[in-house]
Amino acid sequence: MELVDRLIKGEDQAATRLISLLADGSPLSPQIVKLIYPRCGKAYVIGITGSPGVGKSSLVDKLISVVRSDNLTVGVIAIDTTSPFTGGALLGDRIRMQRHTVDEGVLIRSLATRGSLGGLSHVTQEAIWILDALGKDMIVVETVGIGQTEIEIAQSADTTVLMVMPGSGDQVQTLKAGVMEIGDIFVVNKSDHGEADKTAIEIENMLRLSPCGGQWKPPVLKTQALSGEGVSELWAAIKEHRSFLLRDGRLDKHRRERLEAEIVKIVTEQIRSDVLRRISQGEELFQLVDKIYRNETDPYTAASVLLGKVGRNGNRWASHSEAV
Amino acid sequence: MELVDRLIKGEDQAATRLISLLADGSPLSPQIVKLIYPRCGKAYVIGITGSPGVGKSSLVDKLISVVRSDNLTVGVIAIDTTSPFTGGALLGDRIRMQRHTVDEGVLIRSLATRGSLGGLSHVTQEAIWILDALGKDMIVVETVGIGQTEIEIAQSADTTVLMVMPGSGDQVQTLKAGVMEIGDIFVVNKSDHGEADKTAIEIENMLRLSPCGGQWKPPVLKTQALSGEGVSELWAAIKEHRSFLLRDGRLDKHRRERLEAEIVKIVTEQIRSDVLRRISQGEELFQLVDKIYRNETDPYTAASVLLGKVGRNGNRWASHSEAV
Repeated sequence: MELVDRLIKGEDQAATRLISLLADGSPLSPQIVKLIYPRCGKAYVIGITGSPGVGKSSLVDKLISVVRSDNLTVGVIAIDTTSPFTGGALLGDRIRMQRHTVDEGVLIRSLATRGSLGGLSHVTQEAIWILDALGKDMIVVETVGIGQTEIEIAQSADTTVLMVMPGSGDQVQTLKAGVMEIGDIFVVNKSDHGEADKTAIEIENMLRLSPCGGQWKPPVLKTQALSGEGVSELWAAIKEHRSFLLRDGRLDKHRRERLEAEIVKIVTEQIRSDVLRRISQGEELFQLVDKIYRNETDPYTAASVLLGKVGRNGNRWASHSEAV
Repeated sequence: MELVDRLIKGEDQAATRLISLLADGSPLSPQIVKLIYPRCGKAYVIGITGSPGVGKSSLVDKLISVVRSDNLTVGVIAIDTTSPFTGGALLGDRIRMQRHTVDEGVLIRSLATRGSLGGLSHVTQEAIWILDALGKDMIVVETVGIGQTEIEIAQSADTTVLMVMPGSGDQVQTLKAGVMEIGDIFVVNKSDHGEADKTAIEIENMLRLSPCGGQWKPPVLKTQALSGEGVSELWAAIKEHRSFLLRDGRLDKHRRERLEAEIVKIVTEQIRSDVLRRISQGEELFQLVDKIYRNETDPYTAASVLLGKVGRNGNRWASHSEAV
């Protein structure tokens, strides 16, 4: 593939095109990944997440400068989980990042939600592979929000930075609700805010209570993303976390686990889309819904009828429902 | 099944036990649903969602009283999407709801995340069926947060109430990010807060800009969940939305769509778990990850090997990857 050849030669434009192909769910995806994969595994992936308005894009903007001053190249994947309803609402925030695009060592690409959110973490992983094969040393994945999708996306990163707004007790309470675990480094942004210190202490206290504390103690840093204050310290913390992961084989272990999850995702996704296509054909699904709606059958029985249809050779997929 | 007989006789305890069985993913699930389903379809389902701390449990508590004064029975499903890390952190908030459990017309049941979040919306749907078959007139589903899972869960409801904290520009910005669409009724709680009016106006403005505005214009109400102020108005708005849905066949249409989605979910989930079980057996997955990690193969090729293994009779599931 010509695009892949150009990617491997280091052409940013080829990377951008390939990411678009993958994001659009091109049938060429497997072929693209197969061709580029031998070049993957060298980049280090940093995830940056936090609520809207916390200052992620500004922080990434400043982080790019710091990373570049270490002579490392950077790829940025900025992910919009916004709905079509408000699509592009966040675009403005990201314009300021674009000043880096004149720098050849930097490539910034936005990924937006197309169709199912579930697929976004998979597309993100593929975009990471592309930037990795392009030869970027560092890949920054910026996600908006701290929902389940964002957590999944964060799991593609080697180091995850969780940004928190100062003075928002609610923010910290939201953190409690299932996302604390994903943070390798915590950043309280807008450190000039009166309650920044208080929020940092709250997070530190919460981390101290964590029963899952491993050997890595997540640092809680303070930054002013707009002025760049604290960003060098953040970069130092990222490098420290990287050394920690390299020291005892954790990086290998994490990456293997992610690969395993990714393969399983590809397998199940292919089967799922195949099954969906089959059961959406014809009138059968419609008629079954009709029967359920009239209480003449139930969802499980309807599902087993469809499973029987999908499993051509007897009921290979229907073993579970057959037992009923 | 004895439990099902007792459920149909109206025994709360049987409902509680059956919900536990379903939540634990009992192999009896299909059988249970099959037996109870003929009794389903009478209850009206109200979803209540919003960020942690917005006052959902207090509102539900007061709403129960209002609904009961209309001589309707109520089932409540309170869903925890909290992680094991902080499991139970929200329990306290819900204790106050429990005062209603002495009332025979009220049944309150909590559902917590076990394993995959993806499955929670399915378990919620099953719990709704149980309470429906038990004969509850109204079912209230309370979810914490406004992530993708919560949106999915909200979609099980006939009327969805979206609660917002006053004075939080960030909150409203979060709303923008993909959840606005799910609200049939908006509630700004803590209406004594100085910025409650401002927040209500912000939401109204946002709704006015919505391109997807159908014939239903979501009202924006103000409540004080702790004192109960505004809760009768909320109940009136819910009944009005219900009349709207009944008027032009929308309720039927929505419910049919949900049933269709539910069947598809059951089919794909059964296939997915079957496939997962198969590919996790033995050393093959481990060895494939090993090979990928050494860049000797790539994730898509590995997936197609596994697909070949899963599709016993040739490559029925592997058509996509075979083409590569």
